[in-house]
Amino acid sequence: MTKHDLSLLSAVQSADAIRTGRITSEALVEACLKRIEGTDSIIHAWTYLDAGVALDQAREMDRIRNAGRATGALHGVPVGLKDIVDTKDMPTQCGTSIFAGRQPASDARLVEHLREAGAVIMGKTKTTEFAFMHPTDTTNPFDPNRTPGGSSSGSAAAVAARHVPLAIGTQTGGSVIRPASFCGVYGFKPTRGTISRSGVFRTSVSLDHVGGFANTLEDIALLTDVVSGYDQTDPASFSRPRANMLSGAQAEIPIEPNIAWLDFPFHDRLDAETIDGINAVIEGLNGRVERFSASPQLADLINVHKTIYDYEMRQNMADLSTTHWAELSQEMQSAITRGAEISEMQYDDALAVMASAQSFFAGYFNDFDAVLAPAATGEAVPLSAGHTGDSVFCLPWTLAGLPCLTLPLLVGKNALPIGVQMIGAIEEDDRLLRTASWVQRSLVAHEQKGE
Amino acid sequence: MTKHDLSLLSAVQSADAIRTGRITSEALVEACLKRIEGTDSIIHAWTYLDAGVALDQAREMDRIRNAGRATGALHGVPVGLKDIVDTKDMPTQCGTSIFAGRQPASDARLVEHLREAGAVIMGKTKTTEFAFMHPTDTTNPFDPNRTPGGSSSGSAAAVAARHVPLAIGTQTGGSVIRPASFCGVYGFKPTRGTISRSGVFRTSVSLDHVGGFANTLEDIALLTDVVSGYDQTDPASFSRPRANMLSGAQAEIPIEPNIAWLDFPFHDRLDAETIDGINAVIEGLNGRVERFSASPQLADLINVHKTIYDYEMRQNMADLSTTHWAELSQEMQSAITRGAEISEMQYDDALAVMASAQSFFAGYFNDFDAVLAPAATGEAVPLSAGHTGDSVFCLPWTLAGLPCLTLPLLVGKNALPIGVQMIGAIEEDDRLLRTASWVQRSLVAHEQKGE
Repeated sequence: MTKHDLSLLSAVQSADAIRTGRITSEALVEACLKRIEGTDSIIHAWTYLDAGVALDQAREMDRIRNAGRATGALHGVPVGLKDIVDTKDMPTQCGTSIFAGRQPASDARLVEHLREAGAVIMGKTKTTEFAFMHPTDTTNPFDPNRTPGGSSSGSAAAVAARHVPLAIGTQTGGSVIRPASFCGVYGFKPTRGTISRSGVFRTSVSLDHVGGFANTLEDIALLTDVVSGYDQTDPASFSRPRANMLSGAQAEIPIEPNIAWLDFPFHDRLDAETIDGINAVIEGLNGRVERFSASPQLADLINVHKTIYDYEMRQNMADLSTTHWAELSQEMQSAITRGAEISEMQYDDALAVMASAQSFFAGYFNDFDAVLAPAATGEAVPLSAGHTGDSVFCLPWTLAGLPCLTLPLLVGKNALPIGVQMIGAIEEDDRLLRTASWVQRSLVAHEQKGE
Repeated sequence: MTKHDLSLLSAVQSADAIRTGRITSEALVEACLKRIEGTDSIIHAWTYLDAGVALDQAREMDRIRNAGRATGALHGVPVGLKDIVDTKDMPTQCGTSIFAGRQPASDARLVEHLREAGAVIMGKTKTTEFAFMHPTDTTNPFDPNRTPGGSSSGSAAAVAARHVPLAIGTQTGGSVIRPASFCGVYGFKPTRGTISRSGVFRTSVSLDHVGGFANTLEDIALLTDVVSGYDQTDPASFSRPRANMLSGAQAEIPIEPNIAWLDFPFHDRLDAETIDGINAVIEGLNGRVERFSASPQLADLINVHKTIYDYEMRQNMADLSTTHWAELSQEMQSAITRGAEISEMQYDDALAVMASAQSFFAGYFNDFDAVLAPAATGEAVPLSAGHTGDSVFCLPWTLAGLPCLTLPLLVGKNALPIGVQMIGAIEEDDRLLRTASWVQRSLVAHEQKGE
């Protein structure tokens, strides 16, 4: 293995190679650190990284393995954490100077799961201010003049740049799906309540989700399995069994799936080449995709999302906006100001629409295995735009708490990646991953036939 | 399946039958409830049981399964909980009138894991007062005039009486291993820190362990896997990967194991028939058991255990003994009084010996796969004795935090069960279970040969 660059291994490959003794975790982490050292002066994916802390964990996992002790599903595999995820041994600063040097006393619940699985916590990746809109200095690994997307900017960029095979992100609007699209990696936000948000900075109790990034479908499934779990301290967490993501990603379809495409009014924001690319995808899927127009009620969900997000953001930022108003970005100040203008009745109405959207989609997936949708307008937008891109294509699905996946399927005119989004039934994340695996294989088969 | 009594199925069989649709969880829980109804007026295993609450959970698990949603490792399988394990929907009274009607606001961490695995929380089983020595009215399912052992009295009795296939217990001295022996079931207390104690009544932060009961080796392994997990709020919990118990129980041995037997001075408390039975076991194991004498230092660990237990019990009972002294049993009052006479220096010395015992055993299992030991003096003692039996055979191993297992191998002169204890290396619980599986199969083969 020594001739290979270990940072190019997938997480599944790495964990297997470490367990069977073909590579050490130390060598893997060193390869990742070398890659970070070589490129992070341009990419700026990391806000906290201590090579010694990472290597100590790697050596400990090697020691456990060599002693014949139990190994975990991510034994010795490095993982990056968006810097709104609390860690007891690393600062957690949420992308704001207000939290400079903030050191949590405890790990987030999902970090407990990672440690128990033997993962190496590599460090903290850059997030937009409080996981909202104000950009980081992170650049897109494919083009240093473009954004990696946000708010999980550093996590998406770090995985794309092969700094780590896996990273954790969060999504309240489109903060996993869009950066994955811009960076050409898999992004997955499972069903609401699958992964605990305890110890993750809260912006919106109704809309915040945890997700992740990886370079293969199996990897993102495995990462999600590891961090999933019931946690009664998170009001969204459910106490039922969770879908087995890796089994889903590896499963064969029982019959060819039914996939829906919904035309939304906001699709006029799509680039022409994105529309062309998605049409080619639809054409490649053996007529399994049916096209529909979204109802006005569905299209209006983006406004419902905005009402809930602004209102809850203001709630959660109430103390900080009193004590640190001047240190908040313009984007954040505006959201808080908007939130203050939303009445309790408007907010309650929005929650009621959210509940009815969830009911609607509970029935919808009786007829369809997945919805196909854009992940972003097109290629990553230039840094000069001053924002991390448009999240509109994610809002209805995030609002409904559905599992959402970015598949890195397309390439734009500047040779930059463009992802395609797939959305599945609530708590049937395994079916979504199974369908996504079929989509990938079908498109390859379609291309090989030269159709 | 309708002709069979479903309460006789193992947990592994039940979960498989429910997942594949051969039986429903509702039918299984009904069968268990019927068995409870028929025998618990004599056995008194349960302190809280609401058939409606249990059946509601069962129907919910059936609904989830029928909807094609994810199923868990214990989907629809009923589990009993020792009544020092907090549950948010059932009272938790710790075997004392002081806590009559006490209703926790949250589940213990291990209950979260059970719910996530799809288990049905059947109810709360009787525990001795604060999981210490003062007996319950629970009787041994094999003889209503004898104790089931303690402190996990109801859990052991409920599993033996086929009220539930699985139950959770705890062990600070010998409260899993001995009741399992008296009741003819498997009892397992994994390595210290494997299962979180958060939400479990604390008697001794150094010595308290969570364990469980089942009717098969695979069942006890599966139960342990489900409730295992890192929990940073439990000071004993470790953040490393945990052994996979079920894989261990199902594994083939790579070579015939080396097993040690240690003669301790306190073995003079063993019944003659227990000695005979254990000698027959040793004889049946192809000469794989070597006999040694325990050093005086090892034998003295039982006093070290007592010092730590009494001292920490007094600490943890400090408030309650101030406010409720008269409601405490004589046994508890004595322990608290003894604890008050232990100096901080004596306690620190005891902790130092405990640490050195852990170091000693860390090396010991380089040479041996397991230690074979008594689980109890012999058959269950009569209720008229006023206690739940002698825990001395468990104390050195509990003190060292080692995984301990009761195998229901022997039968005494009154046709009552006598278990045999096996102890393994720390954090190598899978190796212990693998060795135990070999022991069972070897003894069957030995008998079949008529040797």
